Amino acid sequence: MTAIRHPLRLGMAGGGEGAFIGAIHQKAAALDGDWRLVAGAFSTDAGRSRRSGAALGLDPTRAYASLDALIAGERALPEDARIDALAIVTPNHLHAPMAIAALEAGFHVFCEKPMAISIDEARAIAAAAQASDRRFALAFTYSGYPLVEEARLRIARGDLGTIRLVQVEYLQGWLSLPIDDQGNKQAAWRTDPARAGIGGCLGDIGTHAFHLAEHVSGLRVASVAADLATHVPGRRLDDDVSALLRFDGDARGLLKASQVAAGEENGLKLRIHGTRGGLEWAQMEPNTLTIRWLDRPTETIRAGGPGLDPATLALLRTPSGHPEGYIEAFANLYRAFAATIRGDDARYPGVVDGLRTMAFIEAIVANAAGDVKWTPIPSGDTV
Amino acid sequence: MTAIRHPLRLGMAGGGEGAFIGAIHQKAAALDGDWRLVAGAFSTDAGRSRRSGAALGLDPTRAYASLDALIAGERALPEDARIDALAIVTPNHLHAPMAIAALEAGFHVFCEKPMAISIDEARAIAAAAQASDRRFALAFTYSGYPLVEEARLRIARGDLGTIRLVQVEYLQGWLSLPIDDQGNKQAAWRTDPARAGIGGCLGDIGTHAFHLAEHVSGLRVASVAADLATHVPGRRLDDDVSALLRFDGDARGLLKASQVAAGEENGLKLRIHGTRGGLEWAQMEPNTLTIRWLDRPTETIRAGGPGLDPATLALLRTPSGHPEGYIEAFANLYRAFAATIRGDDARYPGVVDGLRTMAFIEAIVANAAGDVKWTPIPSGDTV
Amino acid sequence: MTAIRHPLRLGMAGGGEGAFIGAIHQKAAALDGDWRLVAGAFSTDAGRSRRSGAALGLDPTRAYASLDALIAGERALPEDARIDALAIVTPNHLHAPMAIAALEAGFHVFCEKPMAISIDEARAIAAAAQASDRRFALAFTYSGYPLVEEARLRIARGDLGTIRLVQVEYLQGWLSLPIDDQGNKQAAWRTDPARAGIGGCLGDIGTHAFHLAEHVSGLRVASVAADLATHVPGRRLDDDVSALLRFDGDARGLLKASQVAAGEENGLKLRIHGTRGGLEWAQMEPNTLTIRWLDRPTETIRAGGPGLDPATLALLRTPSGHPEGYIEAFANLYRAFAATIRGDDARYPGVVDGLRTMAFIEAIVANAAGDVKWTPIPSGDTV
Amino acid sequence: MTAIRHPLRLGMAGGGEGAFIGAIHQKAAALDGDWRLVAGAFSTDAGRSRRSGAALGLDPTRAYASLDALIAGERALPEDARIDALAIVTPNHLHAPMAIAALEAGFHVFCEKPMAISIDEARAIAAAAQASDRRFALAFTYSGYPLVEEARLRIARGDLGTIRLVQVEYLQGWLSLPIDDQGNKQAAWRTDPARAGIGGCLGDIGTHAFHLAEHVSGLRVASVAADLATHVPGRRLDDDVSALLRFDGDARGLLKASQVAAGEENGLKLRIHGTRGGLEWAQMEPNTLTIRWLDRPTETIRAGGPGLDPATLALLRTPSGHPEGYIEAFANLYRAFAATIRGDDARYPGVVDGLRTMAFIEAIVANAAGDVKWTPIPSGDTV
Repeated sequence: MTAIRHPLRLGMAGGGEGAFIGAIHQKAAALDGDWRLVAGAFSTDAGRSRRSGAALGLDPTRAYASLDALIAGERALPEDARIDALAIVTPNHLHAPMAIAALEAGFHVFCEKPMAISIDEARAIAAAAQASDRRFALAFTYSGYPLVEEARLRIARGDLGTIRLVQVEYLQGWLSLPIDDQGNKQAAWRTDPARAGIGGCLGDIGTHAFHLAEHVSGLRVASVAADLATHVPGRRLDDDVSALLRFDGDARGLLKASQVAAGEENGLKLRIHGTRGGLEWAQMEPNTLTIRWLDRPTETIRAGGPGLDPATLALLRTPSGHPEGYIEAFANLYRAFAATIRGDDARYPGVVDGLRTMAFIEAIVANAAGDVKWTPIPSGDTV
Repeated sequence: MTAIRHPLRLGMAGGGEGAFIGAIHQKAAALDGDWRLVAGAFSTDAGRSRRSGAALGLDPTRAYASLDALIAGERALPEDARIDALAIVTPNHLHAPMAIAALEAGFHVFCEKPMAISIDEARAIAAAAQASDRRFALAFTYSGYPLVEEARLRIARGDLGTIRLVQVEYLQGWLSLPIDDQGNKQAAWRTDPARAGIGGCLGDIGTHAFHLAEHVSGLRVASVAADLATHVPGRRLDDDVSALLRFDGDARGLLKASQVAAGEENGLKLRIHGTRGGLEWAQMEPNTLTIRWLDRPTETIRAGGPGLDPATLALLRTPSGHPEGYIEAFANLYRAFAATIRGDDARYPGVVDGLRTMAFIEAIVANAAGDVKWTPIPSGDTV
Repeated sequence: MTAIRHPLRLGMAGGGEGAFIGAIHQKAAALDGDWRLVAGAFSTDAGRSRRSGAALGLDPTRAYASLDALIAGERALPEDARIDALAIVTPNHLHAPMAIAALEAGFHVFCEKPMAISIDEARAIAAAAQASDRRFALAFTYSGYPLVEEARLRIARGDLGTIRLVQVEYLQGWLSLPIDDQGNKQAAWRTDPARAGIGGCLGDIGTHAFHLAEHVSGLRVASVAADLATHVPGRRLDDDVSALLRFDGDARGLLKASQVAAGEENGLKLRIHGTRGGLEWAQMEPNTLTIRWLDRPTETIRAGGPGLDPATLALLRTPSGHPEGYIEAFANLYRAFAATIRGDDARYPGVVDGLRTMAFIEAIVANAAGDVKWTPIPSGDTV
Repeated sequence: MTAIRHPLRLGMAGGGEGAFIGAIHQKAAALDGDWRLVAGAFSTDAGRSRRSGAALGLDPTRAYASLDALIAGERALPEDARIDALAIVTPNHLHAPMAIAALEAGFHVFCEKPMAISIDEARAIAAAAQASDRRFALAFTYSGYPLVEEARLRIARGDLGTIRLVQVEYLQGWLSLPIDDQGNKQAAWRTDPARAGIGGCLGDIGTHAFHLAEHVSGLRVASVAADLATHVPGRRLDDDVSALLRFDGDARGLLKASQVAAGEENGLKLRIHGTRGGLEWAQMEPNTLTIRWLDRPTETIRAGGPGLDPATLALLRTPSGHPEGYIEAFANLYRAFAATIRGDDARYPGVVDGLRTMAFIEAIVANAAGDVKWTPIPSGDTV
């Protein structure tokens, strides 16, 4: 008799009507049938939470007005009905209290990045995760792209030789004007230290860039020399980040993140060069991985095309030439998270990735504020 | 009291384990929460159908071994439990009998293309659809891309002036070798006249190219001069199509479709030039629409970026720079189909599109077989 | 004792002040120091010819008012002072009389394309060239690009397997408006049958496309099915060409040339697919040759980069990444022409290429005017 | 009576047989007919200099074995026969002595970059130029590209608003292996402090990047924080440069130059963002300038296409779509230099550009060696 593969049950904190990233989580979780959204504390406005739930087809009793209510309500349900995991899609300052509460209540957690608003908070989440037997995933979405995994695998197996250069950039332009003061909710909380933490652009997208650089290169950043700027007058956090990177070993790097690069969309790009060649991947055309070689013609590796590692192929849903995008990359994280919960081993970003990025934020802010050239980022063990 | 928006219920004919397009339909239907797959005749092998259903989390009683069984089983359920619509994802020769049976049983139908294996069969579907009050959608997926809609809207409002040239091409390479004889199921039925109809490459992807050209240009092809080739020895249908097109009015065009363009992936590309400029859209980078002007710099229109029509924006799920792909385009068809069933008016390809493409197939085959230069395609009214 | 390598002496017919292609010839001839322009019949307006000569630094006695005067004047000079070769850069109708006169007077000829305004005229040039011991070169400039030669060599050595598809296109937009009636000299003669011949766009750029397709593929077009259009009202020659091509053997092709593709610049692009892969070259980014393979990743071959044939490297002047362009491609023809005159064997387009393209023009015009599907192009031997 | 426009007479120091940049100067000078190479001290090996001269068609008496001999020989000729200007295409350590000698002998000088091996030497050249009435040009070639000029003009007229970000990079891979020790002459002198100065990659290409950034942005770099690396063991100078830039005003920048980015060719790229949008230009596809706007679609400005400033058009030789490249950019510098010598005012890089780049080299080297975060670059007036 074939066992029926029921979807896992997902709850959501945040992500009500009109939210950006909440809707992405919902679609990414739904795409492959691994998850079904069954509960949510979509808003602290009870009516708004209820309307959000109704629009999503939820049982009205499971559209809660707070995370506390959600936890209490779900725990009151039979084990085979209550949510398996909670997706946290709120501003940063709520990540830690919510994640810790959910983990302690026995739910797995899929949390938006950055992990928290301080490394101390992040450590508290790490401790809560360790104390429980629950899983904690972080939405470093870009590591879910198949050709990012291909790049990582190729570097890990030594195709490029010894790595010398790592260049990562993440250019956006949507904060070029002072929209944080003009009713744009996305902008308002991201530029508010109380809700975003000590990094603006740094925390919002600099962390993605940093994570991608370490994740794909397999190297750790040892120290940074940074420049933070706030180009829009009156803004309370940085909107532009530049940093020199020194990695363990001899590799050198550059990190650039900006939200005032007027006209840019979501320009995350990674380039890594070793002794034998270099690779380039750009998020806005994610199905192509370019590898330039010292001694033979440039190769274009394509999603679904010849030459891919089987592990990359497993991340794809369509034949070559049928583009997959951001939601599919996101869905790869949800799929891996589901597989792990079901007992299979699968990769997704989690506690370690979160702690590294929090240490990165703190090192950059410290360096940018002072006259010392290089500020170290403690290695993972000391975090 | 807010009404809960329950998903519509979908059944599927074909699309069992390992199928390509069936899995795409499942993901596209699931993406936005508009549909839930609840039943299927995934295979005529009862065990395989059951296993497919189990893997999809279906109630085992709704994994049927034939469409007849599905229709009988679903009609035996209460109206608010049975499927609303049937997705037909089988080889071409089953489209007509299945679509007609489903329509007559009171189900809406979302059918793979081409509509049928002959224009007579297609007319029979059209008649069945008209006789019922049910909806019929055809999977001309590429018309679901947001920037295809933007292109269509811009031409319709006259931005390019009078249209003079329409060039469409669809290049694939996956049939370069005789894999149809070597156990590749996708290749085997597509090159078998009994299951595919009179067109090989012509029916499989030439129809997509033709549909896109007419859909976006807003023009009808009046006559064709064509060359069909079968490059792989022993293959029973064409694998390569070339055609000169004359449109109503003075526009001229070219259509190229090939499945033996070795090394090509899924290269569907459309270019349309008018008196004031020309546009270009390519499926493999679908979030960009390029417009070259006679008298000002080339513009790159981007999904989510400035300058889009509100109707295009409504087809997008992510901010600019977060790529959407093939599954999202497909999901736009499922979303429009759901909206229409729910009583809102929305665009999706249907009976008229299907009849045009069947007339196109027949005209191309007739022309390629003879010595006459031009063969007309009857206008829609006469079909 | 090292022999001093003096430049060859060039004369020019046409190409006075403000001319487009004459200035290109002058720069291309000068680039490598192989040629020095010393005489010209730049215009039949004596003052204009003299001014043109003065601006080019010529001895005033060698700025002639007619080709007859040039021939007489140069023959009156000592053999080591008179011109070695004549560049003919006039409208098409003057090519034959001028080329024949120059060849008969003992000068090598470098002639603009198309060779003449009819195949009979072209045959007369061929006869004159054969009767003399002088060389005749034709400005099929695009064959001078290094990566075009690389493409030709790779196909000739069988890298792509058996050729199945040849697609060539040449899109311009500069004749989108009726500028031929509005004082644009370039447009006026190109659309005037008396000066251009029976082909408009066909003769001007369709010939380039045809030449490139045969030159690189190594295949001959056996027959054509064509559509000629004149989109601009009142224009006397075609401004838009579409053709299906059947090659010797089983290869099929498409040729598209247009001068009313509004917004296009000089879009010459060639794609050739064989059983093992396909290549693509585009004139507007001429230093890249893309090869897509059936069974391994796409390769980007770059001017000056790894993997080039030594014959290609010999056509380059700069290291990889330092772009060379149109004038350099043109200069490669002048360099090969000089080498041949000096006694080395070098490739450049000549009489055979010219006769083929004239046969092509006549076949297309005949086919487009009638109801017969296919019109043969006689093989070279019968021309 | 029309005056004949004779070419100016050029001499060359360095650039004998097999030299890279010497041959480029020769072709660039010849392209437009503004210059004729008539003399050279191509090598200190008399035979090699003579053979080089013969291959270039020179009078054997003007192929000298030293610059002293050239100066003496040319000054012995009548004024209307001797060279007008000397091109210096030697390794860096010879620039200053040769330039000063030539200026003092009454010749204009067109010198390779960097200006000298120290800022003191550069100041000595500046003094010599000022003491003479002769002109001094520096081969900052990339500023000769037409679309670089277009970018500069657009920024100067305020199209992009206030400049916030300047990113420049120059990636090469040709020094990835220790070829400086293995007989590669180009590599050997560039990595030898005695001949190259204190910067390796920094002096060779970092200077190009710096010059381009200041030239196009119209801004001066106020201070730098830098990291220099030598990735190839045993190499005596840096082969990899990373720097944070702070400009006068609030603009921030990044500069990256590397000669060990394996697989890269000649990847010079400039991106500048202001409050209203950003532009991007890349040397390897130099005929395109991309402008992304905050509030309207991205524009692609093309060489020869609509929207160009007349000053840009004057730098082009071909219609749009006919690519011009590196030699043409170089020739634009030679053309401007000739025009200035002839009494017309034209722009080319000279003494001021040279002094700035020498100050940049010294600031980067000083910063990279220490622990201080920021090192100022003195403004032009203080140099």
